[in-house]
Amino acid sequence: MGKQAIGVVGLAVMGRNLALNIESRGHAVSVFNRSREKTDELIAEYPDKKLVPAFTLEEFVESLEKPRRILLMVKAGEPTDATIASLKPLLDKGDILIDGGNTHFTDTIRRNQELAKAGLHFIGTGVSGGEEGALKGPSIMPGGQRDAYDLVAPILTEIAAKAPDGEPCVAYMGPDGAGHFVKMVHNGIEYGDMQLIAESYAVLKQVVGLSNEELGKVYTEWNQGELDSYLIEITSKIFGKKDEETGKDLVDVILDRAAQKGTGKWTSQNALDLGAPLPLITEAVFARVLSSLKTQRVAASKVLEGPAAKPLGAERDAFIESVRRALYFSKVISYAQGFAQLRAASEEYKWDLDYGTIAKIFRAGCIIRARFLQKITDAYTKDKGIANLLLDPYFRDIAKNYQSALREVVIAAINAGVPVPAFASAVAYFDAYRSERLPANLVQAQRDFFGAHTFERIDKPGSFHANWS
Amino acid sequence: MGKQAIGVVGLAVMGRNLALNIESRGHAVSVFNRSREKTDELIAEYPDKKLVPAFTLEEFVESLEKPRRILLMVKAGEPTDATIASLKPLLDKGDILIDGGNTHFTDTIRRNQELAKAGLHFIGTGVSGGEEGALKGPSIMPGGQRDAYDLVAPILTEIAAKAPDGEPCVAYMGPDGAGHFVKMVHNGIEYGDMQLIAESYAVLKQVVGLSNEELGKVYTEWNQGELDSYLIEITSKIFGKKDEETGKDLVDVILDRAAQKGTGKWTSQNALDLGAPLPLITEAVFARVLSSLKTQRVAASKVLEGPAAKPLGAERDAFIESVRRALYFSKVISYAQGFAQLRAASEEYKWDLDYGTIAKIFRAGCIIRARFLQKITDAYTKDKGIANLLLDPYFRDIAKNYQSALREVVIAAINAGVPVPAFASAVAYFDAYRSERLPANLVQAQRDFFGAHTFERIDKPGSFHANWS
Repeated sequence: MGKQAIGVVGLAVMGRNLALNIESRGHAVSVFNRSREKTDELIAEYPDKKLVPAFTLEEFVESLEKPRRILLMVKAGEPTDATIASLKPLLDKGDILIDGGNTHFTDTIRRNQELAKAGLHFIGTGVSGGEEGALKGPSIMPGGQRDAYDLVAPILTEIAAKAPDGEPCVAYMGPDGAGHFVKMVHNGIEYGDMQLIAESYAVLKQVVGLSNEELGKVYTEWNQGELDSYLIEITSKIFGKKDEETGKDLVDVILDRAAQKGTGKWTSQNALDLGAPLPLITEAVFARVLSSLKTQRVAASKVLEGPAAKPLGAERDAFIESVRRALYFSKVISYAQGFAQLRAASEEYKWDLDYGTIAKIFRAGCIIRARFLQKITDAYTKDKGIANLLLDPYFRDIAKNYQSALREVVIAAINAGVPVPAFASAVAYFDAYRSERLPANLVQAQRDFFGAHTFERIDKPGSFHANWS
Repeated sequence: MGKQAIGVVGLAVMGRNLALNIESRGHAVSVFNRSREKTDELIAEYPDKKLVPAFTLEEFVESLEKPRRILLMVKAGEPTDATIASLKPLLDKGDILIDGGNTHFTDTIRRNQELAKAGLHFIGTGVSGGEEGALKGPSIMPGGQRDAYDLVAPILTEIAAKAPDGEPCVAYMGPDGAGHFVKMVHNGIEYGDMQLIAESYAVLKQVVGLSNEELGKVYTEWNQGELDSYLIEITSKIFGKKDEETGKDLVDVILDRAAQKGTGKWTSQNALDLGAPLPLITEAVFARVLSSLKTQRVAASKVLEGPAAKPLGAERDAFIESVRRALYFSKVISYAQGFAQLRAASEEYKWDLDYGTIAKIFRAGCIIRARFLQKITDAYTKDKGIANLLLDPYFRDIAKNYQSALREVVIAAINAGVPVPAFASAVAYFDAYRSERLPANLVQAQRDFFGAHTFERIDKPGSFHANWS
């Protein structure tokens, strides 16, 4: 029996779907799972597919061509370390482990270094697109040794999603943790996108008074233009969905407590470490947390009054267009922050990230896929060194033409008592970023006053301390 | 020669000032520094004080009464671990190490546990008030073994700041890391306070057009009322300070790049870990980071236009009062978030924190000392279990009466293109916290649509998944 070019360890839904995806491109795939039930189930379900089961790691490793290519799809954290420790003695120099799990990039950096000492290659890769993406074509963000990537690139390219122009949504991100880092920021951006859409929904419902049917139409229409994206598309469909049990609109039956799996939190925590301003995504993370305090909110709603609602009049259609512009411009600001974080990380961790390529591989397969990503690629193609996307001519024009709509919507929401933390944070970031002078001089004066922390001057370099008393 | 009741290791400015503070209460103090120069300098400067120098750790430990009380004032992190490792073999069961450095509370938890195994007590204590506070009376936040605290309480009580009613600003916070945790949140709150004052300054200067002289008068007046606090007091003084070199107002000469030492960042990162919404302080941390991108901002200011400024007319005085109300109500919201984080931490780490006492010991010595803290103590005295300060009748009234001013100021700032991230975040938090229904149902629908993450329903318990396709 011949040996397989690749094997998958871990046959939970993501692992099995990636194995099936690889198999569907004409490759036999070795498969292994710690408990054999999952392996048996998979083989029983797909008896005709070229899936080669192994029931010990020894057998699994033995079944692979050298250099071995092993895709690990096990739980992030301790289980991944345990799997690597079991595999390590069975491997030969030059073999390649690929971690496709939801791993924090600092773990990937550590594992890459540890395994390199034993002559083993380690690729940490983001895989975005959920179960369906894994099966049919995810967006893939691999990082690690470049020569190891070249050895797995053909298979990754085959299984990746294809953008509208046919380009595969996979590319080498950079050394060690770069791939998992990009995936983390992708997820943070996803939190921002979802919160911005939720705020547009709140404003359209509570300020404009749209019904679910009207909301469905608005998002369907928006999905034809600049906002064309997977998340807007599914939003438009959500408003048309009926609850099978009660016959009501399902969206109204769903409890307003947003859950999370922690990658948005990681993105914010890393931005704080890097000193890269990421207020919008962080507001989105906190908005989910606050939504989960449902009991407190219900109690507070009975004692904390807001302003009286002022319904909109004849300007309804114009205001809906303002909400669309507010959403698009806020989205631009959120991506500007996220890509500035990528830049800060690239400098801090010496990754030499290619921002245009990153936007490119987000164009299909992943949750944040959107027409607008092409504009980001275009911006970096024109000027790879641009410090912030808001400085690119296209985005500058959006800022110029849409900022009054964003201000209008935030003001209307504040007047109506509708919380729009991410929209409001977008305005504040935009106005701060374009401020030649911020009131931080006062903060520095205070710090020097109470703690002798010194300050810089506008007229000459150096650190200075004033005698304040 | 008799032995001393307490010794200080580490004679940088905080350590030497605390030693002098203890000595000034009538105690002889053993002092030690890793390099002897600092010890020699201290003794040479104060030859008449009861400071007993030691030049080896052995000699230092030998000079102390048992159980020994040793205050560590060395650099946080590795240097603290190294000092503890050197001391440990010289100590006896029951001796007490007190870390008064700027330590992350997780390190304190770890050290407390490790030393407890050897029968040693370990107290981690926040010390706030800067150099002058250390010398004359800081606010002190100790955590660790309760019986160890009782043995150091008399000295800590003597050296602590005294509140206006004469009460010392020190109290037992709770086990292991509780003291350093409270200090961390204190610092986060300090970031929020400073950013809010900076935003009030920006609005008064850019929207109202006040001169520095007028600003000084406004803050002096504000310091007579609800806002009475150390930070408002020094702000009023800052606007009257001239630059000795140029004769200009010093505040205008100071560069608008705010620095930080990282404790605000820790507070935000921990809030993200705990799932405690802390958006305002986090916006304040990001505002400092963004201010430091001065070069980018100057470049952006030349290409990103904002709205045309609309100067205020006759309503000037009324608007200044609105800014005062916006500042006070935002401050309330910031503390509501900070104290909710303390509550979340108390539950997570099993500390049984006493929130009213915490507000009490902030009343003097520390940077955030303010008249308003009494209102927090009052709120927790009335109802120790209150979930959020905004629900207390006093703060509820502030919300009721001042929210329109906060909305007005944020709207004016947005219209004028003046960034107010913390004010705007305060409004969003207030409106979200009092929302019985948030648009998080849409977020849950999206998550279930693309990732089968399930949702809860409003009409019955359980997890549900819809067939979206």
